[in-house]
Amino acid sequence: MDPSHGEFALIARLAPHLAAAGDGLVVGPGDDAAVVDLDGVQVVITVDVLVEHVHFSRDLSSLEDVGWKAIAVNVSDVAAMGARPRAAVVGLTRPPSLAVGAVESLYAGMAQACARWDVGLVGGDTVRGDVLSLAVTALGTSPGPPVRRSGARPGDRLVLVGALGVAAAALALHHAGAVPPAALLDRHRRPQALVEAGSVLRARGATAMIDISDGLGADCAHLCRASGIGARLDATALPLGAAVADAAVRLGLDPLDLACGGGEDFALLATMPAGGAEAAAREAGAAEGVPGVVVGTVVEAAGPLVGLRLEDGTLRDVTTAGFDHYAVGDSTRQQEDQR
Amino acid sequence: MDPSHGEFALIARLAPHLAAAGDGLVVGPGDDAAVVDLDGVQVVITVDVLVEHVHFSRDLSSLEDVGWKAIAVNVSDVAAMGARPRAAVVGLTRPPSLAVGAVESLYAGMAQACARWDVGLVGGDTVRGDVLSLAVTALGTSPGPPVRRSGARPGDRLVLVGALGVAAAALALHHAGAVPPAALLDRHRRPQALVEAGSVLRARGATAMIDISDGLGADCAHLCRASGIGARLDATALPLGAAVADAAVRLGLDPLDLACGGGEDFALLATMPAGGAEAAAREAGAAEGVPGVVVGTVVEAAGPLVGLRLEDGTLRDVTTAGFDHYAVGDSTRQQEDQR
Repeated sequence: MDPSHGEFALIARLAPHLAAAGDGLVVGPGDDAAVVDLDGVQVVITVDVLVEHVHFSRDLSSLEDVGWKAIAVNVSDVAAMGARPRAAVVGLTRPPSLAVGAVESLYAGMAQACARWDVGLVGGDTVRGDVLSLAVTALGTSPGPPVRRSGARPGDRLVLVGALGVAAAALALHHAGAVPPAALLDRHRRPQALVEAGSVLRARGATAMIDISDGLGADCAHLCRASGIGARLDATALPLGAAVADAAVRLGLDPLDLACGGGEDFALLATMPAGGAEAAAREAGAAEGVPGVVVGTVVEAAGPLVGLRLEDGTLRDVTTAGFDHYAVGDSTRQQEDQR
Repeated sequence: MDPSHGEFALIARLAPHLAAAGDGLVVGPGDDAAVVDLDGVQVVITVDVLVEHVHFSRDLSSLEDVGWKAIAVNVSDVAAMGARPRAAVVGLTRPPSLAVGAVESLYAGMAQACARWDVGLVGGDTVRGDVLSLAVTALGTSPGPPVRRSGARPGDRLVLVGALGVAAAALALHHAGAVPPAALLDRHRRPQALVEAGSVLRARGATAMIDISDGLGADCAHLCRASGIGARLDATALPLGAAVADAAVRLGLDPLDLACGGGEDFALLATMPAGGAEAAAREAGAAEGVPGVVVGTVVEAAGPLVGLRLEDGTLRDVTTAGFDHYAVGDSTRQQEDQR
């Protein structure tokens, strides 16, 4: 669903074909999820595909973990609209070598994630193919209008709910031959989708929202482009856990690179008017037991799209930090891709 | 979505994981589509995955055809519930070798099919992977309760809307080294989903319905098992076009084998009370410009599940005619798989 998963040029070429028919389209391609009006009910819909060796590897994740993740990444897209997930279906491509018990493990993981977020796994299609992949589509609904990426206004505060750099630190340690601490590895294996936080932020007046799947810098840039604004992040405000800081030391990395470039944390980044932003951030974080803080300010688009103000006052451009499917880069996910 | 796409044993093992959470489930796994109640609106949802070399090959279909088919097979599942398709999303796995223009052709074909059936193609996820595949999820709604597979009763008539054996005849000729006539090949490349017919049959009181994707025999058997009944088909009533009959002669095949075992025709098979069945069949066929006929009767489950009464009065068991993903067989689709 998420065109931030790469290929903006491709999406632009495909745009004329999208939403080419049908009525009731409320939010089309280019947000975390689409929204369609079905007989008066606004239904949020999103699809994410996980392919073995590209998006997961079985030496780091069990098949139950993979099933969990396939649901969680979609639930996170629904959460980023401020909506609640309701139902999901899965298109599973199964290599002939994958035993029935292994398929059952995938489904068990999906069922655990569905139980966690009260989602009905209502159907699926299982087909034969050479490469294991899971294409999950999730549906959601919302008691109020879904929050898009495009509503941020200069002067709004940037609110971040969730931790940063955790999944990337786990992966980087693994690729460096180290055993990641459980606190990091668990988050890579079993990402959490912040449904409650998304609902709180919507109810508290979020003007725009996105989930951090590609990295704070890249995803903030997606929000900025959709809203036609810029962002200034405060390095001292970014929530960096001790385990991530420790991993950065062990890896010889700048922890801010992990925080701004590390993907798959599935934190939520929202914008909202300055009054009430601190309280909303705290409330949303408390609802999930994760950090909820104001990390910056929305500005007019000028200079770097996403700038990170460092402790010494200099501004670092973090617009392109993160991962792009079709980019040639060295992001953590690319590293995993090419293992 | 369709467990008739093989692996009943697998589905049985996965069942405890399905619909494990969430509320509002109206129809769960095991029908052409699931139905969930979202804030009072019953939403029909189905997913089908097409994998290159398994479900299509580029030497017989253009990429536009493949895009069309990916939408049409899902729309057909929605039609088989008596519902109307409304929106679709696609999870596209794109090999690095597939040029942007080729992806655009896939989307163009999807957009053409969406325009044909008034479906909004509202979003998608495009990921990198070694094998081209399209996982389409379609949503639909219905002005009345969706028609399940499980409502057939002894004494009901079996109504068939659409042609039989067309796609299978095209494929069989191709594999025999012959050039299929356009009338057959077009139907293989651009299957038609019978949305209007499905609506007519629902409105006229269909007690059960399924679309013919695996073959008349196999799909009728799915309906029989779901309803706990048997079926007696009348060989002289089956709609066999001249092109299919001619192909059978050229191939040295019994045309009834093409009619009962050939998949991917996406005809609709419905059951309904005897009074009005003939008229409903005619009306549903006329709405699509295809044959609409009564082809048999629902009986108590005894003897062959699906029996075909031949002209000479003998009964042929056609329960297992058709295609199963995981079966080792010689169905047309298997033949394509192993090319």
